[in-house]
Amino acid sequence: MIKVAIVGGTGYTGVELLRLLAGHPQVELTAITSRALAGTPVAELFPSLRGHCELAFCEPDIDQLSRCDLVFFATPHGVAQAQVPELMKRGVRVIDLSADFRITDVPAWEQWYNQPHGAPELVEMAVYGLPEVNRDAIAGAQLVACPGCYPTAIQLGWIPLLESDAVDPQQLIANAASGASGAGRQGKTELLLAETSDNFRAYSAGGHRHLPEIEQGLRRAQPAGSAEARVTFVPHLLPMIRGIHATLYSTLRGGRELEELQQLFEQRYADEPFVDVMPAGSHPQTRSVRGSNMCRISLHRPQGRDTLVVLSVIDNLAKGASAQAMQNMNIMFGLNEALGLESPALLP
Amino acid sequence: MIKVAIVGGTGYTGVELLRLLAGHPQVELTAITSRALAGTPVAELFPSLRGHCELAFCEPDIDQLSRCDLVFFATPHGVAQAQVPELMKRGVRVIDLSADFRITDVPAWEQWYNQPHGAPELVEMAVYGLPEVNRDAIAGAQLVACPGCYPTAIQLGWIPLLESDAVDPQQLIANAASGASGAGRQGKTELLLAETSDNFRAYSAGGHRHLPEIEQGLRRAQPAGSAEARVTFVPHLLPMIRGIHATLYSTLRGGRELEELQQLFEQRYADEPFVDVMPAGSHPQTRSVRGSNMCRISLHRPQGRDTLVVLSVIDNLAKGASAQAMQNMNIMFGLNEALGLESPALLP
Amino acid sequence: MIKVAIVGGTGYTGVELLRLLAGHPQVELTAITSRALAGTPVAELFPSLRGHCELAFCEPDIDQLSRCDLVFFATPHGVAQAQVPELMKRGVRVIDLSADFRITDVPAWEQWYNQPHGAPELVEMAVYGLPEVNRDAIAGAQLVACPGCYPTAIQLGWIPLLESDAVDPQQLIANAASGASGAGRQGKTELLLAETSDNFRAYSAGGHRHLPEIEQGLRRAQPAGSAEARVTFVPHLLPMIRGIHATLYSTLRGGRELEELQQLFEQRYADEPFVDVMPAGSHPQTRSVRGSNMCRISLHRPQGRDTLVVLSVIDNLAKGASAQAMQNMNIMFGLNEALGLESPALLP
Amino acid sequence: MIKVAIVGGTGYTGVELLRLLAGHPQVELTAITSRALAGTPVAELFPSLRGHCELAFCEPDIDQLSRCDLVFFATPHGVAQAQVPELMKRGVRVIDLSADFRITDVPAWEQWYNQPHGAPELVEMAVYGLPEVNRDAIAGAQLVACPGCYPTAIQLGWIPLLESDAVDPQQLIANAASGASGAGRQGKTELLLAETSDNFRAYSAGGHRHLPEIEQGLRRAQPAGSAEARVTFVPHLLPMIRGIHATLYSTLRGGRELEELQQLFEQRYADEPFVDVMPAGSHPQTRSVRGSNMCRISLHRPQGRDTLVVLSVIDNLAKGASAQAMQNMNIMFGLNEALGLESPALLP
Repeated sequence: MIKVAIVGGTGYTGVELLRLLAGHPQVELTAITSRALAGTPVAELFPSLRGHCELAFCEPDIDQLSRCDLVFFATPHGVAQAQVPELMKRGVRVIDLSADFRITDVPAWEQWYNQPHGAPELVEMAVYGLPEVNRDAIAGAQLVACPGCYPTAIQLGWIPLLESDAVDPQQLIANAASGASGAGRQGKTELLLAETSDNFRAYSAGGHRHLPEIEQGLRRAQPAGSAEARVTFVPHLLPMIRGIHATLYSTLRGGRELEELQQLFEQRYADEPFVDVMPAGSHPQTRSVRGSNMCRISLHRPQGRDTLVVLSVIDNLAKGASAQAMQNMNIMFGLNEALGLESPALLP
Repeated sequence: MIKVAIVGGTGYTGVELLRLLAGHPQVELTAITSRALAGTPVAELFPSLRGHCELAFCEPDIDQLSRCDLVFFATPHGVAQAQVPELMKRGVRVIDLSADFRITDVPAWEQWYNQPHGAPELVEMAVYGLPEVNRDAIAGAQLVACPGCYPTAIQLGWIPLLESDAVDPQQLIANAASGASGAGRQGKTELLLAETSDNFRAYSAGGHRHLPEIEQGLRRAQPAGSAEARVTFVPHLLPMIRGIHATLYSTLRGGRELEELQQLFEQRYADEPFVDVMPAGSHPQTRSVRGSNMCRISLHRPQGRDTLVVLSVIDNLAKGASAQAMQNMNIMFGLNEALGLESPALLP
Repeated sequence: MIKVAIVGGTGYTGVELLRLLAGHPQVELTAITSRALAGTPVAELFPSLRGHCELAFCEPDIDQLSRCDLVFFATPHGVAQAQVPELMKRGVRVIDLSADFRITDVPAWEQWYNQPHGAPELVEMAVYGLPEVNRDAIAGAQLVACPGCYPTAIQLGWIPLLESDAVDPQQLIANAASGASGAGRQGKTELLLAETSDNFRAYSAGGHRHLPEIEQGLRRAQPAGSAEARVTFVPHLLPMIRGIHATLYSTLRGGRELEELQQLFEQRYADEPFVDVMPAGSHPQTRSVRGSNMCRISLHRPQGRDTLVVLSVIDNLAKGASAQAMQNMNIMFGLNEALGLESPALLP
Repeated sequence: MIKVAIVGGTGYTGVELLRLLAGHPQVELTAITSRALAGTPVAELFPSLRGHCELAFCEPDIDQLSRCDLVFFATPHGVAQAQVPELMKRGVRVIDLSADFRITDVPAWEQWYNQPHGAPELVEMAVYGLPEVNRDAIAGAQLVACPGCYPTAIQLGWIPLLESDAVDPQQLIANAASGASGAGRQGKTELLLAETSDNFRAYSAGGHRHLPEIEQGLRRAQPAGSAEARVTFVPHLLPMIRGIHATLYSTLRGGRELEELQQLFEQRYADEPFVDVMPAGSHPQTRSVRGSNMCRISLHRPQGRDTLVVLSVIDNLAKGASAQAMQNMNIMFGLNEALGLESPALLP
């Protein structure tokens, strides 16, 4: 049994991680921390877990945490930076679901997050936890930086094209939309049902914190010598709970046919348990991945023109956060990568 | 491995059963029928099942079905009546999710469903599949009539009170509400998102087909000699997908305190894996059982007056249909009753 | 032109009042106050009002307010009590949308709202602003206490029965549900879309602040000498924005037929512009009154038994708050009662 | 009073037109036709209109229709083509809300709609009813082809840029999303709440019928000699009732600053009552135009790069259909263009 703890379990990635870990046969959850709710039974905050989790939230305690094999951080950015160094020293492995270790360029991180980085020395050591790209490195990592939700959907939709230099890397447009759970469990007026239901809008069109992570990931996928990938990224807020949908526009070069591109995707992801390349011309629905770790992708080439459209969907809390974290855990501990992640999506 | 087939798998109870069976370690699904979609891959209709179900829908074939250990009927009422008799003759066990065999009083059935009953001789043999009441009979049954969604939530909320004669059986009011999936997957105008979203209304206030099933179940729970249970039942349509919420009003007699009644419920359901009696004064939420087989119940006694309020929630497609069907299967085949039904609800 | 001001305009009743006043031909809005947002243009907070309202929120200023003919209070309870006395002294008329002056029994108010009442001497002077009951008194009132949302829907559904002593006043059950806008525009976690969408639950089943207002209104409708009306009231939170639906159960006495009761309602409301008695057996939908001042009502008598079911729907922000406030204003100033309130509901 | 009739009033554009006409002081509605529902009171189908519309649906009768000053067609495509010619002959003016007369290129129409055009001789006479472009022609038109919903939002967002040649006309990407009412009031399975709620997906990514209308409109706006506008258009289905949101991407040329472009838009629409250019960097919300004829637009230039992002929102049933039709009517009959269209949006 792998002994794990969760730091910061009162948000949506926390409760999703708890749901998934409850169904994992090789995990023993030993602690879940929350300063604000220390003492409150987890199942009181999340009644869906009544009968599945007997723990109460506790104060974070470095000694207790360091007796674990693995600690998940499901905290706002900035928290993991402060606590991870000591855990690393004590030999604990860490999966951070926050943005703290995703971006290698520390000054860029500091600019986008508007604060000094608390543990820049660990950034280089952190392995970016996108298994479809980094599986081997994840297996041996002590610190895994779990990708953001938008970056996961967008990278998986574009990586095959960038790896093979099939599109102009400087004309990339990522139009994406997320369910409201992506904005977290804080009581903000703008996220009330009465504000967001029966409503749709873009946000952060001028610049979203996931942009540098997206561009970093795409650039790593490009062949040496390519012009650097540059993305226009506009996120939108959907009147629904879970799901991310990315509509990716890029300009083809080299004159490949749609069939060829379809094959490119199918081959690239042939051995991936959690990427489903649907038939060309399909329209993946977010509900087809609700609660599951799957990413579904399809290709379109409207009017046979030069603009290729890739559609990519994930569940922002699952493949976009907690289920991908568990996939990383499975890889790190040499387990079947899909263990605990086999359930089909909840539809309808 | 139990060999099973599903007759009529294109509706919501069908896809929910497929989702659950996909995660059951002791089941082999051999066929799923649909006249209209014969030949279509199941995963084409329900992309959430891509990778989980390789079958295509097929024409119903009595020979093929009779090679199964168990056949589920997830059909509209009237279908099972026509096909079950032959399967029974051939020794196949059947779980019917439709209304065909729920009501023992055949003339009442014919009146409420406005058609002659096609297999009245089987009605007496059918076991009503509410495990909390009929576990032993289910274990030995050849034909199980799976309860309706409203009747499940309502009976579980009232049975302890009626068994112990704690309320006036002729002053029972069941105010209930269901998500739109309860109305099925047929393309009716009144069920469009543009009609039902941001909207709420009662329906069938003058008489709903689940009423005779509810009253039958409550009467069976009453001690001999009691005045017959009589229920006013008003269902409502919720602007959401899954979930049933029943608010049950009854008039206390015998002057018992709320604490006593709370104990009554806790003891009655102490050994039930899928009934969760919450602390008195709680408000169970439908999302706390989304996708799970759980029924959560709480008690209130407003202003200390004589009206007791019981709140009871289930997922209409899970405990209200397909998950309860699988629970019945587990009982019928001597398996752990919770096998394949352990996952916590999907929240948020 | 009537010169009006709004105190506390940043909530949902505030923006609804602004929307309605913008279409009223006899009103000049001179000020709208908010301490927190003083200086912010109203149309910045509510972009739907761009082009319709040039004002900015301002600090409340008693001199400015007292130059108005009428001041609306769209504030949390407790605020009007503090400011109304001085305005009254200066001869300004007031419509209070909050709970401050609805309940005549001051100790009861203090108990339910858990604070001392700030202006008990005004309570007796305040006219309860339900035009269907108090039209003449409203016309001459200086201070009108606008009814709560649940109390409006519930009283209109029951008053004809209680006035004519047609039901047992001590067996009244009001099962009601409200859209999330009824809970206000504060950023509370429990009201996030990710918490309330695709979810349904009761709340305050043990006692809701609208209960004493409901019982007070019903008792006033009863003939002298009746046993006091007593209500079990359970509110529920709907996964939608606007709308209240009340399902009212009562026990008939005197053996009247449904047709007779239908006539009773039709006659009682024959001259009411904003109460629509639908054909018996109808099911009014909340969307049929979305954005309008209408209350729609229908009657059912399930199975011909003794329990009468009344269905009553309103828009909680319209007839349940701001539109009813404007109806009161029209009455107070001798205008056509429906002025500015003629638009049909927004459907779909 | 203008005497008007509506042909085909049972859909969402029909009921929206009825709602708006009910509030128009210069219109007398004389007939509303529906073959399927002839004889049914309009207010029975749409209870929101109880008290606002006393008509019943009737069979279409050319003599009755020809006694009107104006006939609206709110029918599926193909119907107006068959009936308009005779009405035109008799001198009646027509506003067609369907796609029948929007596209001047008849063979293109026939290809996209997959049927022969029934009145090609009228296509040239028809005036495209986008007032912001064609106001004068509309005033004198006998036949107005009211624009589609997506084309309205998209053209208004791009026309200033194309008129001034500020962007590359061959690199236009229109990512748009619509509420479910845009798909009509037919009972299709894929539009059920249980299918579309808590779900998001693209559709017709390979080619949508609004594309030729969009490209035609943009090309008309271009200066002579420009390379023809070419658009990649991907529509999406939102889990909500009303609203269209277009996110428009184009590549700047000529090196203009964002401020300059902002001025360009503000000047272009300075006199337009129903186009609201918001401050640069804003994010217009669909709810800010719910039920209103307004189009709100904002500009962004992410990271100061060459891709300009225009956000444009309308209500698909209002400015995208029935309210724009009424705006056209006002222009055709010399009335104040905003008559009956002054109400602010319904928010929340």
